[in-house]
Amino acid sequence: MVSEFDLIRRYFTRPARGARLGVGDDAALLPSPNGQDIVVSTDTLVSGVHFFPDADPRALGHKALAVNLSDLAAMGAKPRWALLAITVPDANERWLAEFSDGLFRLADDYDVELVGGDTTRGPRSITITVIGEIGMGKALTRSGARVGDELWVSGVLGSAALGVLHLKGDLRLKGLDLEHCLTRLHRPVPRVALGCGLVGIASAAIDVSDGLAADVGHIAESSGVGFRIDYGAVPCTPEVEGLKNLPAVRQAVLAGGDDYELAFTAPPRQSAAITALSARLGVGLTRIGTAIEGGGVQIFNSAGKPIALEATGFDHFR
Amino acid sequence: MVSEFDLIRRYFTRPARGARLGVGDDAALLPSPNGQDIVVSTDTLVSGVHFFPDADPRALGHKALAVNLSDLAAMGAKPRWALLAITVPDANERWLAEFSDGLFRLADDYDVELVGGDTTRGPRSITITVIGEIGMGKALTRSGARVGDELWVSGVLGSAALGVLHLKGDLRLKGLDLEHCLTRLHRPVPRVALGCGLVGIASAAIDVSDGLAADVGHIAESSGVGFRIDYGAVPCTPEVEGLKNLPAVRQAVLAGGDDYELAFTAPPRQSAAITALSARLGVGLTRIGTAIEGGGVQIFNSAGKPIALEATGFDHFR
Repeated sequence: MVSEFDLIRRYFTRPARGARLGVGDDAALLPSPNGQDIVVSTDTLVSGVHFFPDADPRALGHKALAVNLSDLAAMGAKPRWALLAITVPDANERWLAEFSDGLFRLADDYDVELVGGDTTRGPRSITITVIGEIGMGKALTRSGARVGDELWVSGVLGSAALGVLHLKGDLRLKGLDLEHCLTRLHRPVPRVALGCGLVGIASAAIDVSDGLAADVGHIAESSGVGFRIDYGAVPCTPEVEGLKNLPAVRQAVLAGGDDYELAFTAPPRQSAAITALSARLGVGLTRIGTAIEGGGVQIFNSAGKPIALEATGFDHFR
Repeated sequence: MVSEFDLIRRYFTRPARGARLGVGDDAALLPSPNGQDIVVSTDTLVSGVHFFPDADPRALGHKALAVNLSDLAAMGAKPRWALLAITVPDANERWLAEFSDGLFRLADDYDVELVGGDTTRGPRSITITVIGEIGMGKALTRSGARVGDELWVSGVLGSAALGVLHLKGDLRLKGLDLEHCLTRLHRPVPRVALGCGLVGIASAAIDVSDGLAADVGHIAESSGVGFRIDYGAVPCTPEVEGLKNLPAVRQAVLAGGDDYELAFTAPPRQSAAITALSARLGVGLTRIGTAIEGGGVQIFNSAGKPIALEATGFDHFR
């Protein structure tokens, strides 16, 4: 029978590159990052909570790493290393081979090295820890927004949540739009290059993983400001634009999690730099609101009326 | 109802000390460790596999961190930071308060700062990632053992496995011995000071988490040597010494996991330094064997006959 050590060797071990020592010792050994701060984040995906039990293992390998890279992107950090703690109910080698393929393909895209982990038996769950670097004191935090700063988001919002609505049968998407929403749900693209490009431009940043209103609320709370958001300006896919006032769509765009776009603030004088960055990276960047005195997040429709949400974002215990 | 963010704030957030930024942003930010290599390790404990579902949450908080600190100890690293990814079936606040108390008490003992994590709902499971530092190129790995090196272990072995045998009703322990074995099982003490003290003395090291024979086998494989172990020399608690030839006890001492002692090799000329270190730290260090040409691990009884084990150590998928 296959052993735990065979599985690690077969599916999760590649020769160490940048690391002095990778998988296969008590710990990984990373070279001294002189003059750089270390940025580190961890995220768990649990079967039945974050993904369907029959989820495509390749997509899952991709997503488990992507959601972590997204956290580093939101700090402006360059990702370097990852550790994988994976719990699986059995040694299904086909599943593991596909999962590891999805994970390593994304890791290669960003030159991220898997340097360690733990393989255990139990209910399926994946925890990845990513480690990156950034120039000392340069990180983008949630606490740097100032009154008068403009609020921006990358890409389009709500797509992953709309994909979930489609899968549940609550909404019918088709063609390119369906493909876009499902790709976004299953294979989100972390905004790594954008995060690095925003260093020195943005005053605060966060990735939109819980939902726009909730995540901008985190910036508001950490920075001690409030936000006004213009719902009409919030970007979504062209096909969905016409449905933007349906309650389910509005909820998806403003409170749907899993988009992994970046929301960030910057003083108005940075708008030319932001536009140039958008063109250079080929990533849409849209101004959707302003930081104001006070606290909280207020969202207004095109008639200037406040929009109330059912829930502002995903919460595991609510 | 209590929210995910309330739980994190109440039970897992304390002000950042050494870190530039701790819990509560997209990632933690750690100061540049100039001139030090980074050592990082991750370990998962799953309910029903690594601990009983009704395990004392304080002990579990302790153990989840201890097993990770043990990995850093085996590298000779000084632990600095930890990230906690915890999955719980519900927001049981009493459980979380006790778990966090156990975790923070041990963290404080070693001046380890909890700088981030993820709190999710699902089958109970705990993944901790620890980050430490060590002088550039000084880490103790598994691959440094040379033919002629002596093999040493710290403390006593088999206690945790004997505790499990007692709990299963397969062996009857009592008094101080029972207390020792259960404490060892539930609240192992990571050999952090010993690991740091062995830098410059030991040629290779590993923590005994899978079982002595399996873990020494890892050093053998990584170093390209074999080992001869004298079973009579392997230290166990005084009360168990007389039972050492019972098959169940022998199996516990040689193949029982969860001891979290260190096994290490050193050239014979280091034996005075090792004895001095043992006295300085108040930790027993015992010479139990020798590195030889070839591969694998051979264990001999006092009559010089080889001992065969049922299994050499714990494996999740065997």
